[in-house]
Amino acid sequence: MTDRLIYLPLGGAGEIGMNAYVYGYGKPGKERLIVVDLGVTFPDMDGTPGVNLILPDISWLKKRKSQIDGIFITHAHEDHVGAIGHYWEQLGAPVYARPFTANIARRKLSEHGLPDSVVTVVDVYPQVIECGPFKVSYLPISHSIPESAGLLIDSPDGRVLHSGDFKIDETPVVGDPWNAALWEEVSKNGVKALVCDSTNIFSEAPGRSEATIGDAIADMMKEATGMVVATTFASNIARLKTLAIAAEKGGRSVVLLGRAMRRMVEAATEVGILSGFPPVVSPEDALNMPRENVMLLVTGSQGERRAASAQLAQGSYLGLKLKEGDTFLFSSKTIPGNERGVIRIMNQLSELGVDVIDDAGGKYHVSGHANRPDLETLHEIVKPQILIPMHGEHRHLREHVKVGNAKGLTGIVAVNGMMIDLSGNTPKVAEYIETGRTYLDGTVQIGAMDGIVRDRIRMALNGHLIVTLIIDENDEPLGDPWVEISGIAETGRNNAALVDVVEQDLSQFVNRANAKTLRDEVKLEKELKTIARRSAAAEIGKKPEVTVIVSRLS
Amino acid sequence: MTDRLIYLPLGGAGEIGMNAYVYGYGKPGKERLIVVDLGVTFPDMDGTPGVNLILPDISWLKKRKSQIDGIFITHAHEDHVGAIGHYWEQLGAPVYARPFTANIARRKLSEHGLPDSVVTVVDVYPQVIECGPFKVSYLPISHSIPESAGLLIDSPDGRVLHSGDFKIDETPVVGDPWNAALWEEVSKNGVKALVCDSTNIFSEAPGRSEATIGDAIADMMKEATGMVVATTFASNIARLKTLAIAAEKGGRSVVLLGRAMRRMVEAATEVGILSGFPPVVSPEDALNMPRENVMLLVTGSQGERRAASAQLAQGSYLGLKLKEGDTFLFSSKTIPGNERGVIRIMNQLSELGVDVIDDAGGKYHVSGHANRPDLETLHEIVKPQILIPMHGEHRHLREHVKVGNAKGLTGIVAVNGMMIDLSGNTPKVAEYIETGRTYLDGTVQIGAMDGIVRDRIRMALNGHLIVTLIIDENDEPLGDPWVEISGIAETGRNNAALVDVVEQDLSQFVNRANAKTLRDEVKLEKELKTIARRSAAAEIGKKPEVTVIVSRLS
Repeated sequence: MTDRLIYLPLGGAGEIGMNAYVYGYGKPGKERLIVVDLGVTFPDMDGTPGVNLILPDISWLKKRKSQIDGIFITHAHEDHVGAIGHYWEQLGAPVYARPFTANIARRKLSEHGLPDSVVTVVDVYPQVIECGPFKVSYLPISHSIPESAGLLIDSPDGRVLHSGDFKIDETPVVGDPWNAALWEEVSKNGVKALVCDSTNIFSEAPGRSEATIGDAIADMMKEATGMVVATTFASNIARLKTLAIAAEKGGRSVVLLGRAMRRMVEAATEVGILSGFPPVVSPEDALNMPRENVMLLVTGSQGERRAASAQLAQGSYLGLKLKEGDTFLFSSKTIPGNERGVIRIMNQLSELGVDVIDDAGGKYHVSGHANRPDLETLHEIVKPQILIPMHGEHRHLREHVKVGNAKGLTGIVAVNGMMIDLSGNTPKVAEYIETGRTYLDGTVQIGAMDGIVRDRIRMALNGHLIVTLIIDENDEPLGDPWVEISGIAETGRNNAALVDVVEQDLSQFVNRANAKTLRDEVKLEKELKTIARRSAAAEIGKKPEVTVIVSRLS
Repeated sequence: MTDRLIYLPLGGAGEIGMNAYVYGYGKPGKERLIVVDLGVTFPDMDGTPGVNLILPDISWLKKRKSQIDGIFITHAHEDHVGAIGHYWEQLGAPVYARPFTANIARRKLSEHGLPDSVVTVVDVYPQVIECGPFKVSYLPISHSIPESAGLLIDSPDGRVLHSGDFKIDETPVVGDPWNAALWEEVSKNGVKALVCDSTNIFSEAPGRSEATIGDAIADMMKEATGMVVATTFASNIARLKTLAIAAEKGGRSVVLLGRAMRRMVEAATEVGILSGFPPVVSPEDALNMPRENVMLLVTGSQGERRAASAQLAQGSYLGLKLKEGDTFLFSSKTIPGNERGVIRIMNQLSELGVDVIDDAGGKYHVSGHANRPDLETLHEIVKPQILIPMHGEHRHLREHVKVGNAKGLTGIVAVNGMMIDLSGNTPKVAEYIETGRTYLDGTVQIGAMDGIVRDRIRMALNGHLIVTLIIDENDEPLGDPWVEISGIAETGRNNAALVDVVEQDLSQFVNRANAKTLRDEVKLEKELKTIARRSAAAEIGKKPEVTVIVSRLS
C-alpha cells in the first residue's frame, strides 16, 4: 500500500461552529495525523435543552491518540478553540497557536489544571513547524478576532492551504491586514487543495472593512443624549477598539461590563496587540459621572440570558440602570436561532424608554467572514487543484462548490465524517467515519445519541407521570397504585383530578390481574404504563411520559 | 358617573400575534362591550414546550359575558380568528365577519360543534351593524389574505377607526385594492382615535404591491429545469394565485400539497373570490408528468415539522420525491424564531441536490403589512385626535407613537391589560387589568402561570430524579430508598452509576434518621430531596428536579 494524504472533518463541515478538522499522511490506517482547531457549538432549547456545551465527537481520534503529532489552532473563537480544555488529555499532542490565541487556549487549559507548556507559541510564515510528515506555517489573515491565521500545510503529497475563518480587509483596525502578496507567494508553485471558509458564500456584495464603520459609530455616540450602551462579541477586539475610540470622540468614558469583555481586553493587552485603547473607568466611578459622558461596552449581543446586556435590560447591573433617553447599540449581527433572545432584550429596553439601534442598515457592523466575491478572490489567487469548502452548513458547502465550479475549479462537498483521499488527481471519498456530537452536560460528557437529552425533550413536550405500586411477599398488591404528575394539567375532562382518574383505571386493572401477571415484572410495568397513558389521553388529550416503579416486598 | 368610551387590548399589544381588543361604552364598570378579533399565537420549545396553541387570557371578558354585544373579526388569519372556536361558548355573543372570514370562522366553530348561525355575514361600508351603543362598519382594506377589513366604530363619544392588519396596495391580485377615497370619507368629520397596525413600523421603504412580484416568479418558473416547489402561507390567496399563474406561464401544472393549502383554496373558491386560478392536478397524476411540467404548492413556509415542505425535504410526500436539479422557492419571510426550522429544511434540500431560492433579495415576496411611510399615509388621511398603535411588540408600539409624535399626533403606548379611557381630550389609563396567556395543552386550557409548563421546562433543563421509600406500620423504613432517573447522565464522576451513589447517600440518611423525622412527612420529603440533589450535583455537576414518593403502610 502506498502513502496517502487525507482530509477528515469531524466538525464544522455541515454546521456553522464546532470546527475540528484532521489531516493525515501515511499508509492507510497508519497515517500520522494533525488536528486543525477544536471548537464547540452552543446548545439551544429546541434540540439540546439543559446541555452546557456541544463538542465534536472525537472517538475516531481518541482511538488513534498515538498517531497524532500536533493540534493547530487557527484563532481564538470558541468554535475553534473552545473544546481544547475538555479534550486535550484525550489527545495529548502539542498545541500550536499565535500569541493571542495561545493566551486564550492556555486560560482554557489551566481551568482543567493543565500547564502552559502544553501550548507552543508560534511565529507566522515563513516560520515552519515540523510535525510528523507535515510542515506547517501560520499565514496571517484578517478576521473578527486578532491574530487569525490560515495554515500552509505541506505534505510529501503536496501543499494544502487551510484558510481558517477569514475576511479580506486591508484596514482591519486591529490585527493583520489582508496580504494578497503573501497568499500569491505561497500559491505560486501550485496548491493541491484549498480548504476554505464558507459561512458567507450567500452574501453577494464584496465585504466591507472594519474601518468603514468607525465614523458612523462616532457620530451616533456624539448625537446620543443620555448614556450609551454598546454590545458586540467580546472577542472582536477591533470592534471594541472602534467603539471605545468612538466613545472617546463623543466625550464618553468607557466601562467594560461582563466577564468575557474584561477577559478579552486583558488578553489582548497582555500580548501587546491592543494599543490606543482609551483608559476605562469602573462601574462605580461611572455612577458618579453625567450619563452623556459614559459608554458601557457590554457582553450579550446574542441575547444570552445572564449576560450584562440582559441584566441591564431587566433593570440594573452593578448598580447601573438604564432609563428614558439612553441608547443601546447592537454592533453585531444576530446569529440565526438567537432572534427570540435578542428581541426579548429589545422589548425590555423599549419598556424602559431606551432607544435601540440595531444593525438592520449595516451601518454599525461588518461581518468577519469573506463574502462570495472575496472567496472568489482567494480562489483566483490560490488556483487550487481541488476546492474543499469547510465551515458551513450543507447548503453553504454545496453553494461554495457551485461557485468554484462556475470558475472552472474542481470541488467536493465533504461533510463531517467523510474522509477524503487527496492523493490522486481528483479527490475521492476514502471512508465514512461514524461521527456526531458530544454534549457537556453539567460536568459529564454524554453522547448526543445516548437518549438522555431525548428523554428530557419528551418530558418537556408531554410531561411526566409516575406510577408506584407495592406488591407484597405473596405477589399480591399492597394498597392501590399511586400516581404523581409533573408538568401535566391537574384536571381534565369533567374537572376531575387527573391523578384520581388514572389511579382508578390502574386500580381496576390491578385488582383484576391474575397472579401470573402480577409476578411478571416486565408485563406488569408495560400494562400499567399503557393504561396510564391511555387514561391520561382520554382526560387531557395528550399522552405523558410514564415511569412505573413496582416495589416488591420480599 | 358619566358614560365613557374605553379601549382595552387583551392580546396583540405587546406581541405580534394573538390579537384581541375590547371596546366599551357606558358607565364605568357597566360598559357595553364589543370584541375585535380573537386570535392565537404559536408555542415554541423555548418558553412553551408541548403546548398546542396560545390563546389570550379572557378572564376579564368571561366575567362580563352579559355585557358583550358582539365579536367582530377583521380577517381570517389565525392570529385574529384562531381562538373563536375555543372561546365562543364562554363569550356567547354574535360574531360578525365578511364572507371569506365567516367561512373560515364557521369551519372553526363547527369543529367545536357550533352552528353556522353563530356567525353573521356582513357587507362592507356603508352597511352598519348596530351593536349596543356602537355602530360598526367594515372598511375593506388590502392585506395578505382576502377580504380584510378595518372597522369604523361609532360611539356616542365619537368615531374610532380600527385599521386591522393592512397594507397600502393598489394592485393586490386578489381582494380589495387600497381605497384612499373611502378612508378620506370616513375621516372627514373627525376621528377620535386611530387604532393602528404596527408590525412593520421599522420598515422604512414604502411597501410594494403584490402585483410587482409576478413577473420575477414567472421567469424563475420558466428557467427552472426540474420540478419546482413553492411554499407560502396557505391563507395568502393572492400569492397562491400569483404562484399558480406563474407556473401556468412556465408550462407547469399546479399540485396543492398540505391540508391548509387545500382548505384555503376551497374556502376562497366557495365564497367566489378566487377566479382565474388554473386547474390543479392530483399528486398521483403529477407522478406521471415530466418534472419540468409540475409545480408543487406546499404548506410549511415557516419550517413546521410536519408540513408538506418538511416531509418533501426529508424524502417524500404522497409518493412525490425531490432530486438533483429541482428547485424549491420560499415565497415568504421567515418569522423571527422560526429560523432554525427553515434552515433545517434548506439543508435537507441541499443534501438532496435541490436548489433553494429564498427571499433574501425581496424578489419573490412582499409583506402584507404597511411599512412606516404607508402608516404615515394613513395617519395623514385620518388625522386622528389620538393615535393608538396596536398589533406589535412593545418596541413597535413605542416606535409607532414616536413616528406619530414627529408629525404632531398625540399617541399612547397601550399594552395588553391597559384600559384606556378615550372620553376626554387626551387618553388616560383608566385601569390595569390582570391579563396574560392561556395555553391549550392537549385538550385542556391551562393558565400560563399555573406552573405546569414551568415544571416541564425544568425537567428539560435538569432531568428528573425519582426517589421512592416505603415506611412500615411502625414508622420504620422498609428496605432502602430506590432511585430512578429520566433525562440524566447514567454515570458521573469515577464512573459509578449515578443511581447507586444517590441511593447510598439516601440510605445513609434514612438509616440514621430518628423516628420523629421518619414520621414527619413534609420534613422527610424535603430532606430526601435535598440529599438527592446534592448527591447528584457532586456526581454530574447539575441538580435534577426531584420527586419524592414515600409510601406508608398502615
